[in-house]
Amino acid sequence: VSISQLIVEEVDLLEQPQIGVEPQVLPEIKYEYLDHTADVQIHAWGFNLQEAFEQCAMGMFGYMTDIDTVDNKGTQTIEANGHDMLSLLFGFLDEFLFIFNADPFFIARKITITSFDRDNFKIKAVGHGETFDISKHPQGTEVKAITYSNMQFHEAEDYAEVFVIIDI
Amino acid sequence: VSISQLIVEEVDLLEQPQIGVEPQVLPEIKYEYLDHTADVQIHAWGFNLQEAFEQCAMGMFGYMTDIDTVDNKGTQTIEANGHDMLSLLFGFLDEFLFIFNADPFFIARKITITSFDRDNFKIKAVGHGETFDISKHPQGTEVKAITYSNMQFHEAEDYAEVFVIIDI
Repeated sequence: VSISQLIVEEVDLLEQPQIGVEPQVLPEIKYEYLDHTADVQIHAWGFNLQEAFEQCAMGMFGYMTDIDTVDNKGTQTIEANGHDMLSLLFGFLDEFLFIFNADPFFIARKITITSFDRDNFKIKAVGHGETFDISKHPQGTEVKAITYSNMQFHEAEDYAEVFVIIDI
Repeated sequence: VSISQLIVEEVDLLEQPQIGVEPQVLPEIKYEYLDHTADVQIHAWGFNLQEAFEQCAMGMFGYMTDIDTVDNKGTQTIEANGHDMLSLLFGFLDEFLFIFNADPFFIARKITITSFDRDNFKIKAVGHGETFDISKHPQGTEVKAITYSNMQFHEAEDYAEVFVIIDI
């Protein structure tokens, strides 16, 4: 509809709902919310890439709840594979996201990579934590997916960092 | 850093943190959250464009809190101007966002357009509601800005609708 097609009208105040009439009656709801999109970038670092990976996964869990409420009641191990370092990071995070989203619904307060095979792009890691319990763990933000969007890693002699955008 | 530059290393398990040692001690936090972006699209409709505008503004307030907790304690009037229908819609929503974000921190449960001058793109409207009170009104999602992104309006004989994306 172009502006030129619009009918010029000055609204007649007499035809409007009267202010003060039935003030507590809400109008019928004629709106809805569509297409909610959101993401957040996690920046994690450490003295090497392995620690940066561990920190990134802990950062992901830290977005889901207040990690201080998570006790160390058990462990879960994951294995991840990639064809390069970025797909390895993706797979590593995705494995931890998977064990949160499905049985055993595990949330980790501490993550340790026990094998970091950079030659074959394979990771074994253990998460320390417990099953998510809504009565104990504050609801944070749902992490819907890991993304490759602008995913980065950088390494120096005693420092490494990664950047990962997650859909929330 | 390209993959070919990466040093191949098989992590020595003996040098890793021992599983089970100091399990309740969290590692130092070495992550942060950057660049949080989010938006939601409001779709609002009515029997004419005026009602669709009113509904869109009520939809915006409905995102900020549970509108059922807002009582009709007073009114605030706004005036908005535009140079076309979309900028008029933007200005109309922005005026209501402004009186929420600044004194009188007003949240409207019902909005009535009292003058809808389509010739000169001017709106006068009244909001019925009260000052936002965090002890009374559940914290919804902060609306950071109205955007022009994919903003649309459509009109038919007895129906009109608008689409507005707001940054949250």
